[in-house]
Amino acid sequence: MKKQQYIVSVDAGGTKILAALIDSNNTITSKAKKSTDAQNGAAVVIKRIIECIETVLAQANVKTNQLAAIVIGIPGSLNSQKGIVYLAPNLSWKNINVANPIKKHFNVPTLIENDANLGALGIHHFGLGKKYENLLGIFVGTGIGGGLIINNKIYRGKSFAAGEIGHIVIDPNGEKCGCGNYGCFEAIASRTAITREIKRVIKNGKKSVITKLTNNYDLIKSGTISSALKLNDKVTKRALKSASETIGLVIGNMSNLLDLDAVVLAGGLIEACGDFMLPIIRKNAEAVALPQNFKGMKIVNSSLGDNAALYGGIALAKEKGFLFGSKTN
Amino acid sequence: MKKQQYIVSVDAGGTKILAALIDSNNTITSKAKKSTDAQNGAAVVIKRIIECIETVLAQANVKTNQLAAIVIGIPGSLNSQKGIVYLAPNLSWKNINVANPIKKHFNVPTLIENDANLGALGIHHFGLGKKYENLLGIFVGTGIGGGLIINNKIYRGKSFAAGEIGHIVIDPNGEKCGCGNYGCFEAIASRTAITREIKRVIKNGKKSVITKLTNNYDLIKSGTISSALKLNDKVTKRALKSASETIGLVIGNMSNLLDLDAVVLAGGLIEACGDFMLPIIRKNAEAVALPQNFKGMKIVNSSLGDNAALYGGIALAKEKGFLFGSKTN
Repeated sequence: MKKQQYIVSVDAGGTKILAALIDSNNTITSKAKKSTDAQNGAAVVIKRIIECIETVLAQANVKTNQLAAIVIGIPGSLNSQKGIVYLAPNLSWKNINVANPIKKHFNVPTLIENDANLGALGIHHFGLGKKYENLLGIFVGTGIGGGLIINNKIYRGKSFAAGEIGHIVIDPNGEKCGCGNYGCFEAIASRTAITREIKRVIKNGKKSVITKLTNNYDLIKSGTISSALKLNDKVTKRALKSASETIGLVIGNMSNLLDLDAVVLAGGLIEACGDFMLPIIRKNAEAVALPQNFKGMKIVNSSLGDNAALYGGIALAKEKGFLFGSKTN
Repeated sequence: MKKQQYIVSVDAGGTKILAALIDSNNTITSKAKKSTDAQNGAAVVIKRIIECIETVLAQANVKTNQLAAIVIGIPGSLNSQKGIVYLAPNLSWKNINVANPIKKHFNVPTLIENDANLGALGIHHFGLGKKYENLLGIFVGTGIGGGLIINNKIYRGKSFAAGEIGHIVIDPNGEKCGCGNYGCFEAIASRTAITREIKRVIKNGKKSVITKLTNNYDLIKSGTISSALKLNDKVTKRALKSASETIGLVIGNMSNLLDLDAVVLAGGLIEACGDFMLPIIRKNAEAVALPQNFKGMKIVNSSLGDNAALYGGIALAKEKGFLFGSKTN
């Protein structure tokens, strides 16, 4: 047991795979990154996950028998007990057992978890400490993911599918969402939604610095949006303000329903544009929330950036009884 | 200890106070009812609660030293540990300690709890059994209340104010709500909202049987709405259908967020018109919910009627360690 001083934590996103080797002091000692290549099928993605894990091990000269567990975050609905991913649209996965082949390859216990759940758990244990018993993590990027910590644990629901805050319908007459519905939160306030809005306004003849920053309006990156913001671009500001207002409304509603200790915002868009967005989000949340529920509720940016889900892996490995170090704070 | 075979459970609503003496077989052995007379101030209401308790004791010839606990459900936000009601708009209460005077009067441990929480707990333990670990109770009447059972317990949140589903904002451009916001769930789908809509349509010249059933359009009772429904009144049907659609939307959203085992509907309007409303509610919930979340989620009427919160008192007394009988199912 003494040798098992490490875990590997993997964040398998729709565009990139991130892996980290983490030691018993909860320090990331080695990191690797690869494009996901989801279009080539699940077997290829699993192979690339394995390669990432091999890379972080080799870089630190750590052997597989020194690993207590491998934890993999997946952007989709899944059964963490069976190791099966039910549906991960951004990976084009349906009913894929991802835990087994990786477990077999390394002969190391392998856990899978929804990436937003893992992110919320990482934030809970390593971002804000354990002082927030009931916490909602909202991850705003290509889509909008949610992870709920209730009574200091991931809240998973009856079929491990809780936290799908991105598919709360805000406006039944709104834009079509990837899930098939109309007016979902992520169809209104994700980076994809903001991109669509900026594109629409430019097409209608409004001038925007965005046209100079990128040729690809279908995928305006968070960094590009941030650059336009710094250049005081009105089109970008307006789209971002509108999305922030909706995020605030949803947080106010969540406060009324769940009387949360904290809401932590993370994801590419928040990392790039959080300073602009946060004051608008807070103001709109306060307008909606009941005073007593709003009072004392923190609304903050995650301090962990890309690493939230990776750190979440440590907490999950502990929760599942894979002894590893002693500190989670 | 053997003598403490009873509890008294009180549901102190905005219009009426209900009290029940419950024995160790979880049977209501005596019941009393009084108007609340909230307009006469908190002291009067507390006096009337005490009178109700005395009545149920006298009717069954039970002495106060046979009581294990008194539990009181209050329609408002409160601190169940301190016994203080922070805000109960329907009682016009603000910062009232209701537990202490009653505890003093009877010399019996006295607990207070939000009435919707208590209702959800009653449904959980006595309406649907313990098979639903994560359950949302929605109480539709004058307003809309919510009670959340998470991991088989009342979920209270950081300041005991969770479950305020009636104040989730559905449509920021909607009708003004009692809380001061616009377009809250209860401003759109409560009996009060339906009453307002029926009144508006009649004023605009539409014919409705409601005009023959009541003279008071400002307070159309659930029973009157039910009678109009049986007479196939189009104005009533349309208003009720629209409210049911919104209730369905909210339940679908709750399913996506919380992946619930069950949603149980209760309250005066549901009791009176549930047969008409439920199919519309289910259809609209299914349209919004992600398939995996909707699958296996029950949406049902409470079988406990007015008694849900009263039965909740038994479960709360047990949860708080006041030994009382042995069965909660």
